[in-house]
Amino acid sequence: MKRYLALAEGAFRDADESKTARGVIAYGRDPVVAILDSTLAGERFEGIPIVARVEDALPFQPSTALVGVAPPGGVLSPAWREIVRAAVAAGLDVESGLHVYLADDIELSELARRHGVQLRDLRRPPTDLTVPTGENVRHGASVVLIAGSDCGTGKMTVALELDREARQRGLRSLFVPTGQTGIAIAGWGIAVDSVVSDFIAGAAERLVVEGAARGDLLWVEGQASIVHPRYSGVALGLYHGTVPQLLVLCHVAGSARIARLPEHPIPPLAKLVELHERIALPIRPCRVAAIALNTSALDEPTAQCAIADSETETGLVADDPVRFGAARIVDAVLAQLGSPEGR
Amino acid sequence: MKRYLALAEGAFRDADESKTARGVIAYGRDPVVAILDSTLAGERFEGIPIVARVEDALPFQPSTALVGVAPPGGVLSPAWREIVRAAVAAGLDVESGLHVYLADDIELSELARRHGVQLRDLRRPPTDLTVPTGENVRHGASVVLIAGSDCGTGKMTVALELDREARQRGLRSLFVPTGQTGIAIAGWGIAVDSVVSDFIAGAAERLVVEGAARGDLLWVEGQASIVHPRYSGVALGLYHGTVPQLLVLCHVAGSARIARLPEHPIPPLAKLVELHERIALPIRPCRVAAIALNTSALDEPTAQCAIADSETETGLVADDPVRFGAARIVDAVLAQLGSPEGR
Repeated sequence: MKRYLALAEGAFRDADESKTARGVIAYGRDPVVAILDSTLAGERFEGIPIVARVEDALPFQPSTALVGVAPPGGVLSPAWREIVRAAVAAGLDVESGLHVYLADDIELSELARRHGVQLRDLRRPPTDLTVPTGENVRHGASVVLIAGSDCGTGKMTVALELDREARQRGLRSLFVPTGQTGIAIAGWGIAVDSVVSDFIAGAAERLVVEGAARGDLLWVEGQASIVHPRYSGVALGLYHGTVPQLLVLCHVAGSARIARLPEHPIPPLAKLVELHERIALPIRPCRVAAIALNTSALDEPTAQCAIADSETETGLVADDPVRFGAARIVDAVLAQLGSPEGR
Repeated sequence: MKRYLALAEGAFRDADESKTARGVIAYGRDPVVAILDSTLAGERFEGIPIVARVEDALPFQPSTALVGVAPPGGVLSPAWREIVRAAVAAGLDVESGLHVYLADDIELSELARRHGVQLRDLRRPPTDLTVPTGENVRHGASVVLIAGSDCGTGKMTVALELDREARQRGLRSLFVPTGQTGIAIAGWGIAVDSVVSDFIAGAAERLVVEGAARGDLLWVEGQASIVHPRYSGVALGLYHGTVPQLLVLCHVAGSARIARLPEHPIPPLAKLVELHERIALPIRPCRVAAIALNTSALDEPTAQCAIADSETETGLVADDPVRFGAARIVDAVLAQLGSPEGR
């Protein structure tokens, strides 16, 4: 078992910037024993001590430092390089979801070799990827893809909550990670946005085939959106490569435009549902089972109202599974898997 | 100006295997002065001599050897390595669209250095790609994406024929290449299937922005299909990243299943048109202007009948622009660009 020191220097306060650190704290297989952020040193987060320097974390016996932030551009600043160097020098393995690969850095890899520790780049794709072989439609598991109307709708968290609910019901359920935070949480997976584009669907196939060896009900973390002007190719390749039976569609309540790209409208929810269903591969028709509405910016009565509106608009079950529990969406998924002709 | 020796050892007879060599012969900017295929040595193809060995081609004064085949897996067999070695030793630059990069081969790159020649890998993407910036909707050119129902429908050839017809009418028209053969033909472009998947749309944007600097009417070579189970991500990323005003949809007459993947149906043509139009980014609604029907497997009366059927089914202009001329499809495109509310 690993014991993580989550590196989040200057970033832990910002839930978005420190998404990877927070994701591993909330959902990770392995415990986070300390958080590094000198601007919050001395405080605690969910009982976990926050420290200023790597050496201050050593009494908590971490085995592995996790680069728990997503810096702009994914590059390693001089300050971050110093922190990674300190972690390596302290004998910790380092895991990173940065776009630049630590193991390709000559100085860091030489330092790691000398200290006998590993540098693991979570985004680095396998080198033996290929196109789908057809195994993605032949395994026995049920596949539910957690799709979305945009980036940042909470797809990963929804997938994790639905998986947790299903496991609590005694199902052989599995979260299937497709991005660096999910990989850090689950300890396996492929960052599909880092794969050569010819092999997106092949990477997606490999994930569900591996998942089917371990679970009967797979919740695949979606990426971006098929209507996202930057990343739609990743979203569609992941959709077609995982060949899901069902989708859960994540949407930020009230959002009508792509985040940070306001000139790009998001189609109305009902249209989005229809578009997702129409673009399923003919070999396996796919339905949207439910809407996962992210209501985190709304007060509770407004959130309930937005959920009811989404149900009326789409005719589907809608809920905020992170805020109000995952039961209703899991119910809807199981009902549709049980009777594929239903609805 | 380059003078090509097209390397097609053992493959020139097969039009599909030697697609790159034949494409450059038919449409290339620079002339092919000899073809290498020892199984056809002594014959001619469209007046071009076919030779058995690199040294036999030297009297025709080639400047550049082009790896004009697509070997399975894209790797360099020992026999092919020997041919490339001979070309380099004879002082020729070498261009290659193989998946493996010649310039990364230690032996070949050392040999090239010694002989003062270049190894150019046509599929190698630029190193400075990023996500789209929005320039793809701000330039002044008209963009027509040549999409398709499958791989191998003739998208590149259709794009080249439509471009040729438009240029003959005096328009500032440009073919925009997105695959290795197109790049060899036009001398520029990006092989979008080789790009990291996060940057498909960014690569597509760069192509149309570069194209808009040189032409007013851009015919973008599409890749694969948004309904292809292996490569749909590439197709959609290219669609959304080029933000076309119009599509021309290529389809092999009568094909109802994805080539070599017969368990995967191709949706009926009318449905495919609708699906393409629905998945356009909301910022720029896009229509299918015409159907380019590949009738190469049919006799002429059957071909004409298939074209008429496609017109009835879709309500659009349909034609085989390679066989019967590109005029009707160019007419349809220009009419719709002129009156965007039309049809």
